[in-house]
Amino acid sequence: MAPIIPDQTFDRGQPSNPTTSPSDDTERCPFCRIVNLYTPYDPISPPEASSPLISPELAAPGPETYVLLSTPVVIAFLDIMPLSRGHLLVCPRRHAPKLTGTTPNEARELGYYLRVLSAAVGRATGVDDWNVVQNNGAAAAQVVPHMHYHIIPRPEIRAQGRWSEKFTMFGRGQRTDLEPEDGERLAVSIRAEVAEILQQEAGDNVAIHAAPVVREKL
Amino acid sequence: MAPIIPDQTFDRGQPSNPTTSPSDDTERCPFCRIVNLYTPYDPISPPEASSPLISPELAAPGPETYVLLSTPVVIAFLDIMPLSRGHLLVCPRRHAPKLTGTTPNEARELGYYLRVLSAAVGRATGVDDWNVVQNNGAAAAQVVPHMHYHIIPRPEIRAQGRWSEKFTMFGRGQRTDLEPEDGERLAVSIRAEVAEILQQEAGDNVAIHAAPVVREKL
Repeated sequence: MAPIIPDQTFDRGQPSNPTTSPSDDTERCPFCRIVNLYTPYDPISPPEASSPLISPELAAPGPETYVLLSTPVVIAFLDIMPLSRGHLLVCPRRHAPKLTGTTPNEARELGYYLRVLSAAVGRATGVDDWNVVQNNGAAAAQVVPHMHYHIIPRPEIRAQGRWSEKFTMFGRGQRTDLEPEDGERLAVSIRAEVAEILQQEAGDNVAIHAAPVVREKL
Repeated sequence: MAPIIPDQTFDRGQPSNPTTSPSDDTERCPFCRIVNLYTPYDPISPPEASSPLISPELAAPGPETYVLLSTPVVIAFLDIMPLSRGHLLVCPRRHAPKLTGTTPNEARELGYYLRVLSAAVGRATGVDDWNVVQNNGAAAAQVVPHMHYHIIPRPEIRAQGRWSEKFTMFGRGQRTDLEPEDGERLAVSIRAEVAEILQQEAGDNVAIHAAPVVREKL
């Protein structure tokens, strides 16, 4: 059995290219760029939408980033090519290509916030069903090599006869550009729902409903 | 905002059928049946394959169950209709229809063991790439209403021209029955890899490689 070593290369199983270093990997990584631009905040009292700390334009000239959660360990933001409204990503701040490159603590934190963010996006969109997906490696359709979970709301679309179309291979489905105005509105709402969920369950260990009541149609 | 309440029904958003109770739900749940048949064991020293504690036939007359991990909080076993060799499921012991029905502790434990089981199945199968998928609700293709994560190894199949075929809608792909002999062999190997991973990282907080070396071709 090979010794356990930190996962530092994009291409697992291949030796690192001796002309590059792990820092080259992170310099090229779009998620590391987001991590470096957006500092952590207390998710129970997120910044106002007008705060420069979470300004979508911090990411200029790249695509705007709509931050939903930013802790010392993990960060979540809206996918810029969503498969559905509210499609979001959550990843560790530290660069790790695959799930097996995370630390036990990062893996636990991701598991915890998947649950919180699932509930928050359900409340913010009013959509009851959703998928959680995490792809490791090219054969698994991974595109950005900084490990991340997707949360993808699934509105009831079978009635519209579009089910099979939307459930094609993950990452190759019908994706559309995120509209900045809607991104901003969704991000404000999801940050507020995250705060409310964390406040409500502080101290207890209870299960949470995803979207029992939609407060406002967004 | 509706109060946070435990998620106890299969059909979220609809009132429970007054003629049934939560216990009816768990009596009908195939994963609760597995939970009740297989008691927890220390994953660092799993039972021998011959132990009656993990006998696949405990589940008779139902499909045989190949247990990979069994703690007081979570249980993992091979999918009986795998999308690929090593396709496994991990779920909380307590019945909860969706991810939002888990407790914070369950959500963290699931996050932690997803990482360990990903590494273990990678080592046992020699497959470097994999997907983690978790479906919530009928519109998201959830079939068994006891929340569970899938870990699905993805062998390099593009070279064989079968990529699009295998990556069709999740849950409707090419699935085949699990062969009992192979199930037993895989389960022995994955339980041993889980034990070795947990032993090796006991006490530290390091990242793990999925499959740096395949010890034996299974």
